Amino acid sequence: MTVIGLGLMGRALASAFLRAGHPTTVWNRTPAKAGPLLAEGARPAVTVGEALRASPLTIICVTDYQAVYDLFGASDTELDGRTLINLTSGDSAQARDAARWAERRGARYLDGAVMAVPPAIGTAEAVILHSGPRPDFEAHESTLDALGTVTYLGADHGLASLYDVAGLAMMWSVLNGWLQGTALLGTAGVDAVTFAPFARQIAAVVAEWLPGYAEQIDKGSFPAEVSALETDVRAMDHLIEESEAVGVNAELPRLIKAMAGRSIAAGHGGEQYPVLIEEFRTPRD
Amino acid sequence: MTVIGLGLMGRALASAFLRAGHPTTVWNRTPAKAGPLLAEGARPAVTVGEALRASPLTIICVTDYQAVYDLFGASDTELDGRTLINLTSGDSAQARDAARWAERRGARYLDGAVMAVPPAIGTAEAVILHSGPRPDFEAHESTLDALGTVTYLGADHGLASLYDVAGLAMMWSVLNGWLQGTALLGTAGVDAVTFAPFARQIAAVVAEWLPGYAEQIDKGSFPAEVSALETDVRAMDHLIEESEAVGVNAELPRLIKAMAGRSIAAGHGGEQYPVLIEEFRTPRD
Ligand SMILES: NC(=O)c1ccc[n+]([C@@H]2O[C@H](COP(=O)([O-])OP(=O)(O)OC[C@H]3O[C@@H](n4cnc5c(N)ncnc54)[C@H](OP(=O)(O)O)[C@@H]3O)[C@@H](O)[C@H]2O)c1
Ligand SMILES: NC(=O)c1ccc[n+]([C@@H]2O[C@H](COP(=O)([O-])OP(=O)(O)OC[C@H]3O[C@@H](n4cnc5c(N)ncnc54)[C@H](OP(=O)(O)O)[C@@H]3O)[C@@H](O)[C@H]2O)c1
Repeated sequence: MTVIGLGLMGRALASAFLRAGHPTTVWNRTPAKAGPLLAEGARPAVTVGEALRASPLTIICVTDYQAVYDLFGASDTELDGRTLINLTSGDSAQARDAARWAERRGARYLDGAVMAVPPAIGTAEAVILHSGPRPDFEAHESTLDALGTVTYLGADHGLASLYDVAGLAMMWSVLNGWLQGTALLGTAGVDAVTFAPFARQIAAVVAEWLPGYAEQIDKGSFPAEVSALETDVRAMDHLIEESEAVGVNAELPRLIKAMAGRSIAAGHGGEQYPVLIEEFRTPRD
Repeated sequence: MTVIGLGLMGRALASAFLRAGHPTTVWNRTPAKAGPLLAEGARPAVTVGEALRASPLTIICVTDYQAVYDLFGASDTELDGRTLINLTSGDSAQARDAARWAERRGARYLDGAVMAVPPAIGTAEAVILHSGPRPDFEAHESTLDALGTVTYLGADHGLASLYDVAGLAMMWSVLNGWLQGTALLGTAGVDAVTFAPFARQIAAVVAEWLPGYAEQIDKGSFPAEVSALETDVRAMDHLIEESEAVGVNAELPRLIKAMAGRSIAAGHGGEQYPVLIEEFRTPRD
């Protein structure tokens, strides 16, 4: 096992491999950052080439994809027959480009995304997403397990990055909905800790609707089994008016209403909420 | 038990009381709507005054607060000694005004909000929020239980309305975060049903953070235990760039980033996400 890139995240990854008992070679542009890892038993490599030769599997975790090319771009870096797992953050197009580049150089390549902060690495809470050829993932899955909850998403190298940002969108939306509610109730002197269990319950209930709503999206058919968008929009008006009346920020409520309003204008007022997928699929400035 | 207002929701409420075996008197401006309820055993009242006299407790569920005043405004409608529970949707200021108005007329008054669609009334899924004097709620709680999950929030009559819109903000935010992710993954051919369990899992994980984050808000202290806002904002940029690159709507990602960006500009870049409560508390056009 080789780890290239020993920033905050790379050090956490290398340390998790060492704790799990995997012999680990490390390399970093600034060699001093390897210090604590060497004390934990890591082997230092002097060059990137030496690091790559030391193990069949190399994990890369640097700032961005440009740094990856800077590191491996030199034609004398031998990638042939190596497996690279790139956990550097980037977008799906960068991941697919990097896969083509690595495969041209004779390497096996998986793209990955780390949905965790460095201290969580090595615990089940750390979700590490992988995409690329399944056999290349399965060949190393038991080693990768040292990092946390290791997940394989599919052959398209862009999937890890897409699931990563999709998950972040979900995360921030849940938090922002909760902050909107917390701000509203704060105006009546209700503590955030009093509202939190109520919000948590709503998140849990709504999360249970997702599989059924997802079926509507995949079928492209949105019968108003529970409520029609034109009914929802009246409640959205209440949310905006209440936010404005008590003097809290109403930008999130207004965005909710604007998207629903456009869907109604497009003729979907009698359909159910997930018909809004059409708005989310349509870019706007 | 009297129910005044027999629209979609009022009929569902009256029907739930009847199914639970409570003698129920009903009144509606358009009398014909009472028909099916009479067949279920409801007693018709000819005037609002007669409906009020028939039971110590009256539930009101009409279009809006103006309709409530239209109904009870006449000075010869005797409210003295009656208990009114108003489940009409409105805002917190309207609820507090109505409470003062009812109390001046000698009535006991609770304001409520129905977080459910009519077919769910009478099941545990239907959440019915109440606020106002606790003894007035407790006197009727066992009767109200026929409606679903009946909750008491506090003495401030505005609370039912505030919790209602706070819950709706949460609900739509969860759904919109999920739709953003579904749209992103759809560009790589991932079905909504494939992404839904992943999204549900994220919602569940994030919901568990809320009580701890709420403590930070109540203390007004946001140490970056997990991640600092200035780190989050780089991932927000990824979300925006990826959304734009694959050609989906980026309005929600841009709002997420805009609010975080303002918080960083206000000097909170080294603090943790819930510091954004200050942005949610600040109105903007
Ligand atoms: N930290 C987190 O919470 C977190 C969470 C999820 C994902 N990630 C992702 O993980 C990756 C690494 O993040 P980090 O927190 O470890 O960042 P970091 O602490 O800033 O470390 C950056 C690493 O990249 C190396 N690097 C940058 N440019 C280079 C170049 N041109 N040539 C060679 N090496 C170069 C740095 O080497 P030097 O030491 O020589 O500067 C360092 O090892 C990023 O893509 C980040 O988005 C981080
Ligand atoms: N339906 C839902 O999914 C839902 C969910 C949560 C909360 N709510 C709330 O429940 C309340 C009632 O909704 P709904 O769905 O039952 O509406 P609806 O089907 O449109 O019924 C409206 C009711 O209000 C009465 N009304 C309106 N103006 C009146 C006036 N000036 N004087 C006397 N009666 C008047 C109507 O009488 P007529 O029959 O004579 O027109 C009818 O009984 C609303 O505040 C709504 O926001 C509804």
